[in-house]
Amino acid sequence: MGVSGSGKSTIGKLLSQELNIPFFDGDDFHPKENIEKMSSGQPLNDKDRQSWLEVLNSLAIKELKKSNCIIVCSALKQKYREILSQNIETQSKWIYLSGSFDLISKRLNNRENHFMPLDLLKSQFDILEEPTGALQVDISLSTNEIIKTIKRDQIETSEFGIFGLGVMGKSICRNLAKRGFKISMYNRHLDDSEVEVAKNFKIQFSELSEAKAFDDITAFVNSLQQPRLILLMVNSGKTVDRVIKNLLPHLSKNDILIDGGNSNYKKTKERFDYLKSKNIHFIGAGVSGGEKGALNGPSIMPSGDKVAYEMVQPYLEAISAKDKNDLPCCTYIGSEGSGHFIKMVHNGIEYVEMQLLAEVTTILEALGQNPDAIADTLGGWKNTASSYLLDITAVILRKKDDDGDWLVKKILDKAGNKGTGNWTTISSTELGVPSTLVATALYSRFISFYKDERLQLNKLFDRTETSELNLSSMEIFEAYQFARIINHYQGFKLINEASNTYKWNLNLSEIARIWTNGCIIKSTLMQDLVETLKHDANILTNTKLIDCVNQYKLAAKKVVLQSLLSDIATPALSEAVQFLNGITIAYSSANIIQAQRDFFGAHTYKRLDDESGKSYHTIWEKLTNN
Amino acid sequence: MGVSGSGKSTIGKLLSQELNIPFFDGDDFHPKENIEKMSSGQPLNDKDRQSWLEVLNSLAIKELKKSNCIIVCSALKQKYREILSQNIETQSKWIYLSGSFDLISKRLNNRENHFMPLDLLKSQFDILEEPTGALQVDISLSTNEIIKTIKRDQIETSEFGIFGLGVMGKSICRNLAKRGFKISMYNRHLDDSEVEVAKNFKIQFSELSEAKAFDDITAFVNSLQQPRLILLMVNSGKTVDRVIKNLLPHLSKNDILIDGGNSNYKKTKERFDYLKSKNIHFIGAGVSGGEKGALNGPSIMPSGDKVAYEMVQPYLEAISAKDKNDLPCCTYIGSEGSGHFIKMVHNGIEYVEMQLLAEVTTILEALGQNPDAIADTLGGWKNTASSYLLDITAVILRKKDDDGDWLVKKILDKAGNKGTGNWTTISSTELGVPSTLVATALYSRFISFYKDERLQLNKLFDRTETSELNLSSMEIFEAYQFARIINHYQGFKLINEASNTYKWNLNLSEIARIWTNGCIIKSTLMQDLVETLKHDANILTNTKLIDCVNQYKLAAKKVVLQSLLSDIATPALSEAVQFLNGITIAYSSANIIQAQRDFFGAHTYKRLDDESGKSYHTIWEKLTNN
Repeated sequence: MGVSGSGKSTIGKLLSQELNIPFFDGDDFHPKENIEKMSSGQPLNDKDRQSWLEVLNSLAIKELKKSNCIIVCSALKQKYREILSQNIETQSKWIYLSGSFDLISKRLNNRENHFMPLDLLKSQFDILEEPTGALQVDISLSTNEIIKTIKRDQIETSEFGIFGLGVMGKSICRNLAKRGFKISMYNRHLDDSEVEVAKNFKIQFSELSEAKAFDDITAFVNSLQQPRLILLMVNSGKTVDRVIKNLLPHLSKNDILIDGGNSNYKKTKERFDYLKSKNIHFIGAGVSGGEKGALNGPSIMPSGDKVAYEMVQPYLEAISAKDKNDLPCCTYIGSEGSGHFIKMVHNGIEYVEMQLLAEVTTILEALGQNPDAIADTLGGWKNTASSYLLDITAVILRKKDDDGDWLVKKILDKAGNKGTGNWTTISSTELGVPSTLVATALYSRFISFYKDERLQLNKLFDRTETSELNLSSMEIFEAYQFARIINHYQGFKLINEASNTYKWNLNLSEIARIWTNGCIIKSTLMQDLVETLKHDANILTNTKLIDCVNQYKLAAKKVVLQSLLSDIATPALSEAVQFLNGITIAYSSANIIQAQRDFFGAHTYKRLDDESGKSYHTIWEKLTNN
Repeated sequence: MGVSGSGKSTIGKLLSQELNIPFFDGDDFHPKENIEKMSSGQPLNDKDRQSWLEVLNSLAIKELKKSNCIIVCSALKQKYREILSQNIETQSKWIYLSGSFDLISKRLNNRENHFMPLDLLKSQFDILEEPTGALQVDISLSTNEIIKTIKRDQIETSEFGIFGLGVMGKSICRNLAKRGFKISMYNRHLDDSEVEVAKNFKIQFSELSEAKAFDDITAFVNSLQQPRLILLMVNSGKTVDRVIKNLLPHLSKNDILIDGGNSNYKKTKERFDYLKSKNIHFIGAGVSGGEKGALNGPSIMPSGDKVAYEMVQPYLEAISAKDKNDLPCCTYIGSEGSGHFIKMVHNGIEYVEMQLLAEVTTILEALGQNPDAIADTLGGWKNTASSYLLDITAVILRKKDDDGDWLVKKILDKAGNKGTGNWTTISSTELGVPSTLVATALYSRFISFYKDERLQLNKLFDRTETSELNLSSMEIFEAYQFARIINHYQGFKLINEASNTYKWNLNLSEIARIWTNGCIIKSTLMQDLVETLKHDANILTNTKLIDCVNQYKLAAKKVVLQSLLSDIATPALSEAVQFLNGITIAYSSANIIQAQRDFFGAHTYKRLDDESGKSYHTIWEKLTNN
């Protein structure tokens, strides 16, 4: 694209020879009327252009089915370009030949047989809307230089960059490369610990033969087509800010950074605002699936500007997992940091699912089952309620150490955490949502870390023998499933409350859908919730789930009760029952608490018999002076 | 004080007549050698002065036992003034008569029979260290004006200001006034809603007859002696910042602001730093006791600069509650926002105590007891375990509405919260401490707020009849007491962890001591903990408490169990048992969770059989490409 006289046809033809792809001059497709109008010195109006542009668009679509091609066209306005690239937005690449009025008018004067008077050139400059996202080439360069610049951008540069080659970053690289994308991969250089990480990674996998490997940030950035798409796969927290600071001087207007780490959603909002002020797009994208998911198809939860998202959409959708209808497990979540919020809640749900499996394992162990037997039991539940975490727990339980004994028995009982469980708990307190199970799972991990104190207290306190447990596998399964339903209820309740509070207008069913594959909490229950959540954000109003809960509750009570009698800690299973009892009480004892608050702090209370919502204060007893 | 020739004796004598208190000229107490030295034109050295200043200090102390007095003395250096006001720092008031060298030398020339040559005056100016915190009076004013200025400051100004007359602010005002302090009280003016609040409050109570009432911020600040001591009793959050912003232009160097609200401890640190840059001291002081405590003696938890604290110490100690040894329930907690942190945890403990009483009430109600009978039951527990919250709950339960029915039955079952429960939960997640009971109590309040949903779900889910409860009052008491011990354990664990993390070096026993009276969580248990915490921050290592816990656990289990069978929600009682089971497990199921984390995220694990702490990663199953 570019005004008449900018050299589109010349450059286009040369490029077509260099790249060995067809060339089309847009002007050759003008209807006769348009040519006559221009020849008579009249500028075309938009109506004149509409059908012509549509013809060129059809041409491009037709050609793309065979191969790439070059089409030249002035395409001065954004809306013309939109017509030209309709339905092939992400496959189109704009090259803008730019030069000053003086330079171009001088060149036009030297041409012969051209039907463009100078005042028409003036009108072209008047209507020219410079494109964003195009490769802009200065026509004062030599023809050779121009061709070289375009070729470097089109052929030698990569379309997508990955910054940070940890476990997840590496898997994403391989995933992109396997799908044919041209990628650049960067990992920092650290003496001793991180040396030629990218290069060594590249030579390990055949699918990376075309990928470019860097440990120099400038070379990495320059290897990317503009606007640059760079996915950050670095540790959340201050590292993200440091990386942004390091990248910023090398970036150009409209480049897009995607944070694929587990960043705090409030920070993502701050970074989004900061980068916007620098004309850089920022997309916070939660990515779940672990190493294997990232490699074969993770679940991706991107948020930020929708326009920027559309630029990266083809890549993210291509590498993501696919749901049962073959739709990508990747969807635009909403504005600001909503993607990272969703990922945070995903991890909160994950914390609870893991805790429940740990509790179930403890109970089955107390029943005398060895790890293989427990794995068999869990395997038996797959038909009714399959999930990724259930599957891997069975694999873990079966795994033998070198000496033939079960590996789990050798593992230190301290469970780490990296922030998302904390943040989910913090968010729940800020949003006023009773996410009791996430807090319970988080605190259980904290307790596990007080190993020395546990050993000390273990000696000081009486513990009952665990011989009298009388529970069937079915009862334990039902208790487990009961708690999982409460867990998913709480998770979507938190998302719904955030959506309302932050005005994110989230689609809960769509969120459940992208969690049906690729991610750590994929399960048949999640599959069911896609439909359930179309009707009500509160899954506990769903008839099928109500029946399940009512049916399973007896077993849940029995499991909690028997564990209690045997001094087995089942905090999450127990809290699930407590929570259901709490959330289904028509009249609770909170009146006592509110009365206490009014007594000592004059916080007032409302009355059941006054629906106006008026606040009352009672002088509960005379204040004495001593 | 002031250099020779500044008019100390003249002004001092006049003032003595005006105020009808004795006058002493410091020079009259000089040993003979000093007078001779000065007469011969030699300046005194500090050794010459030491014994003389001590004599004057003894004089002041002696006189103060009878009444006030006026002593004049040049007192040019800070260290002289420190000797002079030793042991009577807060009862001493410095008045500094200041003038230029020119003015004073001119006046000295006009005097007769004075033994001061001019070069000695020069040396006095050389060593003069101007005092901070003194009333500085310009001697170029007329004698009348000087006397008027001093009298206005000494008699007409207040020694302590209270900003904000809500429930707590008003009580603190009356408390200070009853103890004879001269106070100024301020409340903003808001058309319609807050009109002449301070004035109307003043005329309501006889003890406030000497207090000054303001709704004008300038007049309020000007009514205070310097350095000014101003206690802010306003809503926490942005209001505190707004108030500071409004006050700042009126304040002078070394004035002291005390924030007596429930501010977030991180914010207190920020405000402390900000005000330090403006040369204003800031003390974050947690105040507990509610309306009645604030009136008759609250528990006060101040933190910040120790030097600034010592200026306000006499006031805070005077108004605070007294422990069983008659020591004030007010102690310097530590630096930064540690006072507000402690108050926050105090409220966290309070949340749980309130929740436990609500649960206990529910169970007793399910046993068929009416509110009076429940109050009787609770009253019966007083001998073994008395607490303020137990007491007021009994009072609340007995209270009748106008129609003779129990008032509690009319109160809407929605329990509010104002932030400290959230913050305690948030802090526990940040510090890695399993404060499970605070989170449970907080979430129970959240659940209570979902009243509409509770009513909706109540109709959808099955609930068991509650007829089969079989529990004695003693069993319920033991369960309650069991959970209270766990609650206090968790509270002090959180404080201890914060003390270590933030390097506050907190005295846990002293914190328990100031919580034995005046505050909402005062109890006989807290009384016991004063001694316990002298030996170990972990109260669960105390033999007496271990015996209690072991003894009460059976009842706790029975209460939780029976409530569970009857679908009665007892989340806090239940979690207390779960927590003890968790924290006393030598080998927990956290190995499963860590194995899961290693499986999907390569988070690694440590091994029980490798004490080096080395991290291991297992390839749990071959990664497939699909």
